[in-house]
Amino acid sequence: MSQQKRTAFFISDGTGITAGALGQLLAHFPETQFTQIRIPFTDSDAKVDDAQKRIVNARMENGQRPIVIMSIGNQKLRAELKEVDAYYIDLFDSFIEPLGVELQEEPLTRPGVAHSISGAIYSDRMEAINFALGHDDGMTHNGLNQANVILVGVSRSGKTPTSIYLAMQFGIKAANYPLTPEDFERKALPPILEGYIDKIFGLTIQADRLCSLRSERRPNSTYASLDNCRKEITDCENLMKRAGIPWADSTTRSVEELSAIILQKIRQPNT
Amino acid sequence: MSQQKRTAFFISDGTGITAGALGQLLAHFPETQFTQIRIPFTDSDAKVDDAQKRIVNARMENGQRPIVIMSIGNQKLRAELKEVDAYYIDLFDSFIEPLGVELQEEPLTRPGVAHSISGAIYSDRMEAINFALGHDDGMTHNGLNQANVILVGVSRSGKTPTSIYLAMQFGIKAANYPLTPEDFERKALPPILEGYIDKIFGLTIQADRLCSLRSERRPNSTYASLDNCRKEITDCENLMKRAGIPWADSTTRSVEELSAIILQKIRQPNT
Repeated sequence: MSQQKRTAFFISDGTGITAGALGQLLAHFPETQFTQIRIPFTDSDAKVDDAQKRIVNARMENGQRPIVIMSIGNQKLRAELKEVDAYYIDLFDSFIEPLGVELQEEPLTRPGVAHSISGAIYSDRMEAINFALGHDDGMTHNGLNQANVILVGVSRSGKTPTSIYLAMQFGIKAANYPLTPEDFERKALPPILEGYIDKIFGLTIQADRLCSLRSERRPNSTYASLDNCRKEITDCENLMKRAGIPWADSTTRSVEELSAIILQKIRQPNT
Repeated sequence: MSQQKRTAFFISDGTGITAGALGQLLAHFPETQFTQIRIPFTDSDAKVDDAQKRIVNARMENGQRPIVIMSIGNQKLRAELKEVDAYYIDLFDSFIEPLGVELQEEPLTRPGVAHSISGAIYSDRMEAINFALGHDDGMTHNGLNQANVILVGVSRSGKTPTSIYLAMQFGIKAANYPLTPEDFERKALPPILEGYIDKIFGLTIQADRLCSLRSERRPNSTYASLDNCRKEITDCENLMKRAGIPWADSTTRSVEELSAIILQKIRQPNT
């Protein structure tokens, strides 16, 4: 079967982020080419009309009905939206209302209930982001005792984006600290990290990938050369082995995957 | 009805992030106190057994059956997991398989299909994070022409976490640039921003909230004083009004909400 085109809409009365997260499930259908469109803040008749027009247009353009993943609390608006032909996945109908029956609790239906600023977890996340930014690349030694995790690894092994993802998504305070040829020569972790061994998690990476990442930053340097990358990685893995640090390879893993692995290894503050 | 306790499990053969995102929908039930537990990488009989034990324990502990939001591709493991008593929301049964019928395409069932490193969007996101970190707080003027959006506002109005969220979640290259008393005196945007007016989005904030945020950083300073915060905010809003810059108030909005607003205002590279 040849590749078909479909438009997937994520329509919400709030940010559309929860509905949009389900967009990841579309990756299970690699033969279909999806155009993804978010329509947040759909909380009035006029906005529903607008969304309907876009659904109708997409239908005409692709010759196939669009997929609509929707989260709209107001029952009237919800019914209105569904008047045009599309394949609807309605989070209220299929998820929230049945769950309400199970919990014997009427769900809140006002817009923007998820992803609001309220709750301790939101401020934890913002604090964790400040922490990650302030403790990136070993820039300060203060407050390492507050870290939930300290990521170590050679330069460009993926420590920074992983730290930020852990902070943004989970409110985990993640510091990150580079391991350098100086440490490898001493065959020991940087002295400042002693005493935090239980919080340390290592990232490693394959040499050719590291070479390519470093070459973007400093082309034709010793730093980026394949030989140097190989040597640093071997030294770094030996050091981590000796120190008993758990680690993961970032070469073929996304920050989401690395974070899920790291969360399993460390004590989790929120869950 | 008094507040009940329930445990919500997010069980996946991959990162558990898609299933976990649905956890936001639990916010629709404020009367129920949820303990949320992620169990990623559940891709073997042994791991399913382990998850089952945790479900059974949570049931005993709360006296109520747990909620289990699950995404497991392997049909046999899926059926096995559901042998113990819980309220199951099975993303394969309820979303992926029906969607496959609509698309006339068999879904991939191997673990970790979502949130893998593959695809241009992932590298766009990583590049955008580097961009956001490199263009935080006006630290460099190079490459502003590559920005998808330039956030402006007074110090501590929420520019940094919003930039990082836009990058991490959507692959949007967001620079951010502080507006300072010097700019207010000149009654003009920093000269470097001229020529980018179409990309600029402003953040404002209420004075008492700004005062409290700044006091955390520099207690008892003029910088943090309520009078100074009031004056800077008024000056900043006047400047943005004069320059014709759209803006949003960050006082009661999460980075998710601010980002959804900003995305509506700017041209979106990916969607």
